[in-house]
Amino acid sequence: MKQMKTPLVVLNFKTYTESTGKNAVRIAGMCADVSNETGISIIAVPQLSDLRAVAEIGIPVFAQHIDGISPGSHTGSVLAEAASDSGAIGTLINHSERRLTLADIDSAIQAADRAGLATIVCSNNIATTKAAAALEPDFVAIEPPELIGSGIPVSTADPGIVSGAANAVSGINPDVQVLCGAGISKGEDMQAALKLGTVGVLLASGIIRAPDPGDALRDLVSGI
Amino acid sequence: MKQMKTPLVVLNFKTYTESTGKNAVRIAGMCADVSNETGISIIAVPQLSDLRAVAEIGIPVFAQHIDGISPGSHTGSVLAEAASDSGAIGTLINHSERRLTLADIDSAIQAADRAGLATIVCSNNIATTKAAAALEPDFVAIEPPELIGSGIPVSTADPGIVSGAANAVSGINPDVQVLCGAGISKGEDMQAALKLGTVGVLLASGIIRAPDPGDALRDLVSGI
Amino acid sequence: MKQMKTPLVVLNFKTYTESTGKNAVRIAGMCADVSNETGISIIAVPQLSDLRAVAEIGIPVFAQHIDGISPGSHTGSVLAEAASDSGAIGTLINHSERRLTLADIDSAIQAADRAGLATIVCSNNIATTKAAAALEPDFVAIEPPELIGSGIPVSTADPGIVSGAANAVSGINPDVQVLCGAGISKGEDMQAALKLGTVGVLLASGIIRAPDPGDALRDLVSGI
Amino acid sequence: MKQMKTPLVVLNFKTYTESTGKNAVRIAGMCADVSNETGISIIAVPQLSDLRAVAEIGIPVFAQHIDGISPGSHTGSVLAEAASDSGAIGTLINHSERRLTLADIDSAIQAADRAGLATIVCSNNIATTKAAAALEPDFVAIEPPELIGSGIPVSTADPGIVSGAANAVSGINPDVQVLCGAGISKGEDMQAALKLGTVGVLLASGIIRAPDPGDALRDLVSGI
Repeated sequence: MKQMKTPLVVLNFKTYTESTGKNAVRIAGMCADVSNETGISIIAVPQLSDLRAVAEIGIPVFAQHIDGISPGSHTGSVLAEAASDSGAIGTLINHSERRLTLADIDSAIQAADRAGLATIVCSNNIATTKAAAALEPDFVAIEPPELIGSGIPVSTADPGIVSGAANAVSGINPDVQVLCGAGISKGEDMQAALKLGTVGVLLASGIIRAPDPGDALRDLVSGI
Repeated sequence: MKQMKTPLVVLNFKTYTESTGKNAVRIAGMCADVSNETGISIIAVPQLSDLRAVAEIGIPVFAQHIDGISPGSHTGSVLAEAASDSGAIGTLINHSERRLTLADIDSAIQAADRAGLATIVCSNNIATTKAAAALEPDFVAIEPPELIGSGIPVSTADPGIVSGAANAVSGINPDVQVLCGAGISKGEDMQAALKLGTVGVLLASGIIRAPDPGDALRDLVSGI
Repeated sequence: MKQMKTPLVVLNFKTYTESTGKNAVRIAGMCADVSNETGISIIAVPQLSDLRAVAEIGIPVFAQHIDGISPGSHTGSVLAEAASDSGAIGTLINHSERRLTLADIDSAIQAADRAGLATIVCSNNIATTKAAAALEPDFVAIEPPELIGSGIPVSTADPGIVSGAANAVSGINPDVQVLCGAGISKGEDMQAALKLGTVGVLLASGIIRAPDPGDALRDLVSGI
Repeated sequence: MKQMKTPLVVLNFKTYTESTGKNAVRIAGMCADVSNETGISIIAVPQLSDLRAVAEIGIPVFAQHIDGISPGSHTGSVLAEAASDSGAIGTLINHSERRLTLADIDSAIQAADRAGLATIVCSNNIATTKAAAALEPDFVAIEPPELIGSGIPVSTADPGIVSGAANAVSGINPDVQVLCGAGISKGEDMQAALKLGTVGVLLASGIIRAPDPGDALRDLVSGI
């Protein structure tokens, strides 16, 4: 389940109205169409309450967050097994909007492993990307916080942080693959990201809030 | 939507294996049966990823937690509108296993009001119950943390805290109704809770992990 | 110790360079001078590591934060008795830059009571001010977050929130006194605050970062 | 300043009554005596409000925690420069009783570097120790949480975790030195720790709450 065909587009639905409930299913349908047309893997990352409905579309689905817990008394937490049961095949961990302690990132990776979920640990700079890679997730995703939602793509604004992260991770653990995010929305951004040593991109508003998300996705994966 | 028939049983599914995924639906079915047999309102409180499937059973469903956010960039948070869209008609806020800041409890109540969700704010002693009531939720639920999951019912172990909370809340805001929880599992516990001035109980393991949860529910509401 | 002469000026030193270490002692000296000249109570609120040196100046000193803990294994937490031992006679609790859970605000007030520290619980709107007052601190201090550090005084930008908070608190517990903060720096701001039903003000950058903090303090308390 | 003579004893004063205020100064005096008698470096780690008084004893002093902030509006946070100004030459970061997010551990190390403080990042298992080492602190200190305060020394209860951490760290960054903690109190525990590849120990209650802390310290460093 953890073998994903690269390059990879990871589309974070966040808590936008445009990607909640029926809109989540609609956007996921566009992801399926573009993936079928182009053969590029597109992962949908909807809110928890939409996981099951989005997974039924037939595309790979990740949770936005899980907690490093075992089944038990954890009201309001996200159990890895519950995410898996709802159709998720992986999860983001430590997104910049949901930071975890170091010990909890490690516990969340262990919980994901237990439930068979692939893991993408998010990080904010080269040092924390190296640290995240030392925890042996499947992927790390470097996203400089100041560029998230900025419309300024990290792959052109700060290419050194992306290639630096890719190099640093291969020194720590070559089995960990690197994604990058923040400000990514166009085909040229994604191509630049791949040239810098990543296997794909993590993005959100650039697609979800585009006038036509399907067209935006087609542009993103064009020329790969 | 916020008018609930009392007395009220609020059954927290937590993150128990016994109440995740298909098991959540199964337990919800038992709640529906007992509610139909007895006319007592039973609210199911499953994990977020199970909200939709449980709501389809046709019983009232609450979320375990929502965040005090508006739609936007809040990866991994729980949007009130998403919970509502999935079939929830209310939510717990500030459960002892998911404590919030005072400002965030207030924001969460506002978010719930915006999305039309009823609110149960959990508290740990008389002082915090009064404070919670000042925020004008629909319900407060006092649960002494040391008794949660203990099997020792708060209504007999510490009746003064329950009646004290009920009195204090009526002085602050008589429109706020009081629940109690912690160690509740039997009919006599619930009857004691109602005599002490509450309109119902919040409970979890005493039912979910009972050998036969349906029988445990029947015992709980017997004699009311 | 908890009887403080009002009106009251509470000067938060935050973690500004201008009020750290020797600068903290220097600013505290100005507070002492202005207090001696005018008879107005001025409370200094330095960082923990500066508590003892500032207290030796001979003015009333509060901590910026304490934790709701008892003596024990709490590395990196602030013990009420340690603050008291260093010369603090009170503490801020739940400042907008150091928000606490509702249960922890209550525990911190209990810890302060145990150590003989006066308490100022900070809040962000009328609802949370009422909730804070229900916990029976000595003071609540309402500070709309959007005005903190803005230079726009709450007492003129939003007088209704100040008088509303003062009225609401007197309905909950007339023994709790009300302060206000955010954007306060001038004598007219403080006078407006007192007319709106408060017993004083909480302020920081308007004094600490003024060209001459002593002159700014003199202006603040002029005309009272 | 960052060159510390090893082996190293790091004595965490926590928030024990036995090591608060005057008691902190008394225990620090014992540390000075034993260090002078034996030539072993003993670092005292008192509460923030006791930093200055303990530093005046003339022994090396670390803070229990700093925040990854710059000077500014951070009420209730610990500024690295304030700790340094009070006499600290280093700091613990991410103690198990004060866990930080991964991003905040990194920011705290940067803040410490800026203020000239040495850094000990605490961790709970081999994976998080590797991650901590990737952030390039001066030291990492592995402490299995279940053994902290247990009286069961990690160096005999789980020697593999200590040697495993030491090996893993040398693979990540040989400039980072390894400490271990949890349950350490006797000379044989410390000797075992050094044989397993560490340069010293982090300990607390085993010394602070001993009938005679000075004797306990003498026993700890005997035979090195």
